[in-house]
Amino acid sequence: MTAKPRVAKIRFNKLVVIGVGLIGGSFALALKKAKLVKQVVGVGRSRGNLKDALRLGVIDQAETDAAKAVAGADLVLVGAPVGQMPGIFARIAPALSPQTVVTDAGSTKQDVIAAARRHLGAHFSMFVPAHPIAGTEHSGAAAAFPELFRGRNLILLPQHETRASALRLVKSAWQACGARIVWLDAAEHDEIFGAVSHLPHVIAFALMNQLGRRRDAKRLLGFSGGGLRDTVRIAGSSPEMWRDICIANREALLPLLDGSIAELEAARDALANADGDALEAMFRGGREARARWLLKNAK
Amino acid sequence: MTAKPRVAKIRFNKLVVIGVGLIGGSFALALKKAKLVKQVVGVGRSRGNLKDALRLGVIDQAETDAAKAVAGADLVLVGAPVGQMPGIFARIAPALSPQTVVTDAGSTKQDVIAAARRHLGAHFSMFVPAHPIAGTEHSGAAAAFPELFRGRNLILLPQHETRASALRLVKSAWQACGARIVWLDAAEHDEIFGAVSHLPHVIAFALMNQLGRRRDAKRLLGFSGGGLRDTVRIAGSSPEMWRDICIANREALLPLLDGSIAELEAARDALANADGDALEAMFRGGREARARWLLKNAK
Repeated sequence: MTAKPRVAKIRFNKLVVIGVGLIGGSFALALKKAKLVKQVVGVGRSRGNLKDALRLGVIDQAETDAAKAVAGADLVLVGAPVGQMPGIFARIAPALSPQTVVTDAGSTKQDVIAAARRHLGAHFSMFVPAHPIAGTEHSGAAAAFPELFRGRNLILLPQHETRASALRLVKSAWQACGARIVWLDAAEHDEIFGAVSHLPHVIAFALMNQLGRRRDAKRLLGFSGGGLRDTVRIAGSSPEMWRDICIANREALLPLLDGSIAELEAARDALANADGDALEAMFRGGREARARWLLKNAK
Repeated sequence: MTAKPRVAKIRFNKLVVIGVGLIGGSFALALKKAKLVKQVVGVGRSRGNLKDALRLGVIDQAETDAAKAVAGADLVLVGAPVGQMPGIFARIAPALSPQTVVTDAGSTKQDVIAAARRHLGAHFSMFVPAHPIAGTEHSGAAAAFPELFRGRNLILLPQHETRASALRLVKSAWQACGARIVWLDAAEHDEIFGAVSHLPHVIAFALMNQLGRRRDAKRLLGFSGGGLRDTVRIAGSSPEMWRDICIANREALLPLLDGSIAELEAARDALANADGDALEAMFRGGREARARWLLKNAK
């Protein structure tokens, strides 16, 4: 009789989550639920949010000083808006223990990797860039739930300096959250998510801002159906977080936004000329692209 | 002992639905379910769709000639794309019996009312302009279901010529479908729905067309999350129907589309200048407008 091979399970004595929002909080909850973490320390700027996180059991200890928090940690997840990451990396770098693995959940990758390379110094080899493709329009620790990443993509972007052991650890942690690991190059990542995520967010915010600014907004919106509601759902997202993402990824986002403006100008011209064929061709193109996409994703 | 007052229930011997799509089909199904209609005759251009409608019990008889179909009808609902309505009104006008009430479900009202006034002649007093605020991104008789209008707004726009008896009949029919009656002026209607419905549709079609045209569309869209999916859900709608709506309502839609272009240009400039404050202000404006709207609608 042969013994069943023992699966080496990762286990964290101390996980530090910097930025206990929807993503960081859900990561903590998922690892807690999987019984893979002993203690979660949450770091944040908002005392109210940290209090929520403590009360809801998302974290076990709250800390406002990131450098103090990371001492002796096994894993540090930086879940703050990407605009804050350079400052956070600079602040924690001198306080990191040699064995501490650092990862992030930023929606843009070239800027975060550059900031980590610059500020983490020798510890950069222990940094594993990552991006979980999950979220809702809600933010804050109160919105976190352990199933958020189940079946969702987790993009890993190891650099040539990245240590295999650090990569393994981060990969295992996300797999324990139920995520599917996908590998991407940082430039391609930023181009892809500029198109399928950042651009739609700008468009949704812009449309809702346009309508909301009108004097008759209240009466107007009272008549809207489910179409507008879905179209602008993501305009409920955090303005600060999306400001940071858009600024960080502006090189990819600018030509995309120009493309959207050109598309709407074409629609405008077709409309002004009562050119039904041109308008229908655009609508048909959109409808067919959506149908191909959904068909492929249903497989 | 007094007798319970008898509620005068409307009852249709013959309902004709011209354009047996999601709206026309659901109207027929709802009246059938309420046992208020004896016979439904469906008129359409597509034999396949009429066959579906017959097979699914949406209609009892299919007809391709609208003039032949309307003979002896109690009620005619024109549910075709608004671009076809002038032709339909012209075709049925000579064939209408004096007692036949005509109504429509067009998404634009000034043009439909003008077309009815022009083409229905003396019968215009029996025409009741209406617009049910309901729909999904699916089209065709197969997408119809009797509960579509339950709790949804039905806009009624009687003209000074409209006979009270015709108005009462149409109002009762929609109430029997579970709709909530709302009264609007045609110009205000077109402005409101230009903003909360037609504009979002153009934007969703345009975004999906922009992304779908890319060579890397397949790979790109494979990475998208739920955000894009909701933002472009309504790009699944009928291109022909929306072409007609946009062309018909272009006077209201043009300045709205200009507003969207200006909004995206402002976002573009903020991005180009890395002006995080301007970008955040726009995002915050959008988020707050959405929050106010949802709060009001939840009441």
